[in-house]
Amino acid sequence: MRDAYQSDLRHLVEDLAEISEMVHAALTDASTALLDGDLGLAERVIAADSHIDERQVQLDEKIVELLARQSPVASDLRLMVAGLRMSSTLERMGDLAAHIAIVARRRHPEIAVPSQHTEDFRRFAELALASIKDATSVIRNNDLALAAQVEKRDDEIDDLQSDVYRAIAREDSFTTAQIVDLTLLARFYERLGDHAVSLVRRVGFLVTGDSIDSRVALTDVDDF
Amino acid sequence: MRDAYQSDLRHLVEDLAEISEMVHAALTDASTALLDGDLGLAERVIAADSHIDERQVQLDEKIVELLARQSPVASDLRLMVAGLRMSSTLERMGDLAAHIAIVARRRHPEIAVPSQHTEDFRRFAELALASIKDATSVIRNNDLALAAQVEKRDDEIDDLQSDVYRAIAREDSFTTAQIVDLTLLARFYERLGDHAVSLVRRVGFLVTGDSIDSRVALTDVDDF
Repeated sequence: MRDAYQSDLRHLVEDLAEISEMVHAALTDASTALLDGDLGLAERVIAADSHIDERQVQLDEKIVELLARQSPVASDLRLMVAGLRMSSTLERMGDLAAHIAIVARRRHPEIAVPSQHTEDFRRFAELALASIKDATSVIRNNDLALAAQVEKRDDEIDDLQSDVYRAIAREDSFTTAQIVDLTLLARFYERLGDHAVSLVRRVGFLVTGDSIDSRVALTDVDDF
Repeated sequence: MRDAYQSDLRHLVEDLAEISEMVHAALTDASTALLDGDLGLAERVIAADSHIDERQVQLDEKIVELLARQSPVASDLRLMVAGLRMSSTLERMGDLAAHIAIVARRRHPEIAVPSQHTEDFRRFAELALASIKDATSVIRNNDLALAAQVEKRDDEIDDLQSDVYRAIAREDSFTTAQIVDLTLLARFYERLGDHAVSLVRRVGFLVTGDSIDSRVALTDVDDF
């Protein structure tokens, strides 16, 4: 009985790591669809978002059932509460990947990102994907050394967002529709970076027991 | 002992309603600061966001303590899990109000919203504020009749966002910085509408016991 419970807890962690992998795959494809203007790939990312949603709902049901059945205390309870929060965060990250694909689809056959900014958005994707990959390892192996990388990359993403907003403010050849798209796209990647930080902070909170604030400071659209 | 527990549960609901009122006040002031270009008011909204954050952290601690102490099952457990989720949603709504104030501050002494769009953003604020007010009543009194209004208003906000994006795409007198701001501002109000829907759906889930999907469909930036 106790063994089954321990196995349930391990499964909870593994479920979170697997959903994080699904988000990584979705963002990989969404970013490719965006930069290549690949309509079919964009459509697949948008359709596949419901799989992430289903996994989240299943995981939440599993956690609520565990809470009811086991009446956990202390670290097990904290793990379950963190699991509920992290599954929400991952579900939202899946939505953001789908939003990127939606912009790609909306602009097809044009490519939403003008060629001057291809490298910026390649970099957004690279940073966000590396952070999601690290977050997956942090979730699965409690490898908090990687958490610092995720925090550092989030600062880079914030700086890149400011740079992109400043650059498009200097540009006069873009249509308004292009500016709207670039603004939203930069915001989506920036939020993905924030969410990755939130994930690794939650794990840090579980491992160290400190009440680390898992929310991300209110600076993300502050000064560009 | 049992009475104290029932009182704790009532307090949980009241805490959520009070945080929702704080969000309403923050958005009222943020919207005024935005449309009047009131720097002092914008600063106060930004500074006050930490109070909402503190209330959320306190509420979460209270819920985790209740989970540990009472080992609730059935509807009490569902209430606590919903409370954790709703407190996250409210905290995020506070952030969005602060983000609106940050845009107002960034553009001061200019007003971020060009006069052609004053009415649109007055309407965004009106819709979002009415939904937060209704959500507060739904939380406090389980008044699900109001929930339908919140859903309806969310559709109106989505339509308004599409209209604004289309209108700015036709406009050629705006600077790029203005377009970036308008894009983000419309997005912030639109997300506030989504979050209000999420709040009332969670209450609906508690009251009816149905597994209503509290997430909002993936359509919000789809077709403008």
